Amino acid sequence: MIGPQPGDEHAATCGPVRVVGTGLLGASVGLGLRRFGIDVGLADPSPTAVALARDVGAGRLACDDDEPTLVVVAAPPDVTAGVVVAELAAHPSAIVTDVASVKGTVLADVRAAGADLTRYVGSHPMAGRERSGPAAALPDLFAGRPWVIVNSGATRPEAVLAVRNLAVDLGAVPLAMDATTHDHAVATVSHLPQLVASLVAARLRDAPPQALELAGQGLRDVTRIAASDPQLWTAIFAANAAAVRTELAALRGDLDVVLAALGAATGPATPADGVLATLARTMAAGNDGVARVPGKHGGVSRTYAQVSVLVPDTPGSLAALLAAIGETGVNLEDLVIEHAAGRLAGIAHVSVVPEAAAHLETELTARSWTVVR
Amino acid sequence: MIGPQPGDEHAATCGPVRVVGTGLLGASVGLGLRRFGIDVGLADPSPTAVALARDVGAGRLACDDDEPTLVVVAAPPDVTAGVVVAELAAHPSAIVTDVASVKGTVLADVRAAGADLTRYVGSHPMAGRERSGPAAALPDLFAGRPWVIVNSGATRPEAVLAVRNLAVDLGAVPLAMDATTHDHAVATVSHLPQLVASLVAARLRDAPPQALELAGQGLRDVTRIAASDPQLWTAIFAANAAAVRTELAALRGDLDVVLAALGAATGPATPADGVLATLARTMAAGNDGVARVPGKHGGVSRTYAQVSVLVPDTPGSLAALLAAIGETGVNLEDLVIEHAAGRLAGIAHVSVVPEAAAHLETELTARSWTVVR
Repeated sequence: MIGPQPGDEHAATCGPVRVVGTGLLGASVGLGLRRFGIDVGLADPSPTAVALARDVGAGRLACDDDEPTLVVVAAPPDVTAGVVVAELAAHPSAIVTDVASVKGTVLADVRAAGADLTRYVGSHPMAGRERSGPAAALPDLFAGRPWVIVNSGATRPEAVLAVRNLAVDLGAVPLAMDATTHDHAVATVSHLPQLVASLVAARLRDAPPQALELAGQGLRDVTRIAASDPQLWTAIFAANAAAVRTELAALRGDLDVVLAALGAATGPATPADGVLATLARTMAAGNDGVARVPGKHGGVSRTYAQVSVLVPDTPGSLAALLAAIGETGVNLEDLVIEHAAGRLAGIAHVSVVPEAAAHLETELTARSWTVVR
Repeated sequence: MIGPQPGDEHAATCGPVRVVGTGLLGASVGLGLRRFGIDVGLADPSPTAVALARDVGAGRLACDDDEPTLVVVAAPPDVTAGVVVAELAAHPSAIVTDVASVKGTVLADVRAAGADLTRYVGSHPMAGRERSGPAAALPDLFAGRPWVIVNSGATRPEAVLAVRNLAVDLGAVPLAMDATTHDHAVATVSHLPQLVASLVAARLRDAPPQALELAGQGLRDVTRIAASDPQLWTAIFAANAAAVRTELAALRGDLDVVLAALGAATGPATPADGVLATLARTMAAGNDGVARVPGKHGGVSRTYAQVSVLVPDTPGSLAALLAAIGETGVNLEDLVIEHAAGRLAGIAHVSVVPEAAAHLETELTARSWTVVR
C-alpha cells in the first residue's frame, strides 16, 4: 500500500555500493538500495552517525577490504571534493559520485587535484527534509524528485549510466545538466529563496509581540524555510557564492527601485507620476514569475481547479472530508488548510483536475459539506 | 457540523447595518450578519458587484431612506477615507467603521476633512483570500482572525463597543491597537513579506525552464503570495509607504551585509576571516525570527510534535490516513503534504500536541501505515 515494495522489481544498480557520509541523504541512499538487497557499506567520520545509519537499516559498516563498484559521497559541501578525491584514489575501479547541492566548485576542486575524472560523476538529488541525520532517513526520500547528473566532460558514459541507474532505482527522475547551469539554477530556485526567507524572518526578532499576533498564513509560508540549518546553508552559500551573489544583487536592484518608489509615495500629497506604476509593476512581475513555478508533478505548471470546503477544527473532521472526497473517486492534487487562529473553523482548499471540480462540488454538497464557491 | 449555525446565538450588533463596498470583505460582513437575521443594506459604485453580493445572500440593495445604526466601509484603501467622510455626513447618527488594511493615513485624512471623529472607528480584520469579489465571500471569512480596532482618541466608547460587537458577531478576535502601532505591525508581518515574495518570484521570469524543473516546496512556499492582486497591493503599499519603506530599508541593510560576504567568499581561496560567520549569523537570525511566528491558534507559538507518514498518491489514500487519525481521537493541529514531483508517493506531516504523538504513531503503525521516525 505504501510506495514501491522491495522485491517488486530488480535494481539496475550493481553492488557493492559504498556510502561515505551517513547523514540524511547518505542513509536514505542506503535504505533505498537495501530494499533491493544490494550490499551497502557505510562509512562516516562520526562513529555515532554510522552506527545509527546501520541500525535504521541503511547497510552494514564498511570494511577495509570492500571493493565497491559505486561510491556515493554524501558529505557536507565544503568537504565533498576532498572525500571524492580520496575515494577515487582508494577504489581505482569504482565509479564515484557525490550528492552535494553545489556542483561547480566541487568539480573544479576534483579536477585541480588531478583525480581521475573519467570515473567521477557529480550529482544532486533535489531532496531534503527539515530534519537531518540518519534517524530522519527515508528509503523514499528521493521518490519523484529531480536528480541532477553532471558529466564533467571527461566522464565515461558507463559512469554516467551507473549514477543514472542509482537515481532511477531510488525512484528519482534523472536530469542531465552541466555544473554551471545547475549552480545558477539552484541559486535562483533554492539559494535565493532561502536567503530571502531568512532575511524576512530576521526582521521579526525585534517586532513587538502585538505585531506577531497579526501574523497570517502568508508570513508563515514565506518564512517556513528560515528554520533551516545555519551550518549546512553557510557551506552551500559559500560554495555557490558567485551565482548566489548574482541573484541577490539582481534582487537588490529591483528592491532599490521599490524603495525609491516608496520614498516618493511617503507624505500627504498624491504620489508623483509613475510611483504607483512602479509598485504595480513589481507585483505584476511577481505574478508572472510565480506562474512559472511547476506544480506538484513537475514540468510546466498545470492549473488545477480549487474546491474550498469549510471544516470544523474537531477530531476527525478533516478525515471525514477526505473520506468523502475519496468516495467520489476524485484524486487530490493538493490540499491547503487555511488556519483560523484561535477559533474553530478552517477552510480546506482542495486542488483537483479541472474536469473533476464540478462533480466533486456536487458530491460534497450532497454529503452536507459546505462548499465555498 | 460546519461551523457556527444561524440561530444558535444572538448577535450583539444592532441593525440596520449599511455595507459600502461589496467586494470580498464587504460581502462577507453582510453574509455573516445575515445569519443572525440582521437587516443589511448593500451599496457599491459597481451595479454588478452590489447585485452579485445580494444574490449570494449578503443583504438587500441599500435605499436612499435607510437609517443605519452602523456603516461598514469596505472600499479599496485609496478611497476609504473619502467614503468614510461621506458616510459620516450622510448618516449623522450612525457609527462608521472601515476595514482598510492601513489605518494611519485613513485616520489622518478623515481628521483633515473635519469629519465627526467621535463616531468613527478604524478597523482591520486580518482576513482575506486569494480570490476576490463578492462571489468569493464567506460568512466565516473572519472566524478566528484577529480584528484590529483603532480608537482615534476622539472616538466615543459606545462607537468602539459597536465595532467590537461586530467583530465578535462575525467570529473574529478583537484587538485594540493605535493606528501607528497597527501600520508598523502589518508592515513587518504582511507588507514586507508580500513585497519580498514578489521580488523573489520576479527573478523567475527569465529563469531557464530547466531551472524551474528543480523547484521544490521551499520555493513554492516563499512565492505563493506573489500571485496576489497588483492593484490592491499597490494601494496598500502607497498608503503605508513610510512604514513599509522603513522595514524594506532595514532588510536591504541586512541584505547588503550578505552581499558583501558573498563577494568575499567568491573565488578559489578559503573565505576571509568572518565571512562564513556573517552568513551563519544571517541564517541564525532567521531561525530566531521564525521561531516567534505564532502557530495556528494565535498567541505565543506552541511547538507541536510532528508525525510523518508515507502516503501513496492515489485517490482516497490521504482520506484513509486521515480517517485512521480520526479513529484514534487525536486532533490534527496542522497538516503539510510534501509533494513528490512526477511520482507516486508523498509524505504527510501531521502536527499534533506532543502528548498525543506517541499514541498516534503506535496506532498508525498498527494500522499498517509507514510512520517515518
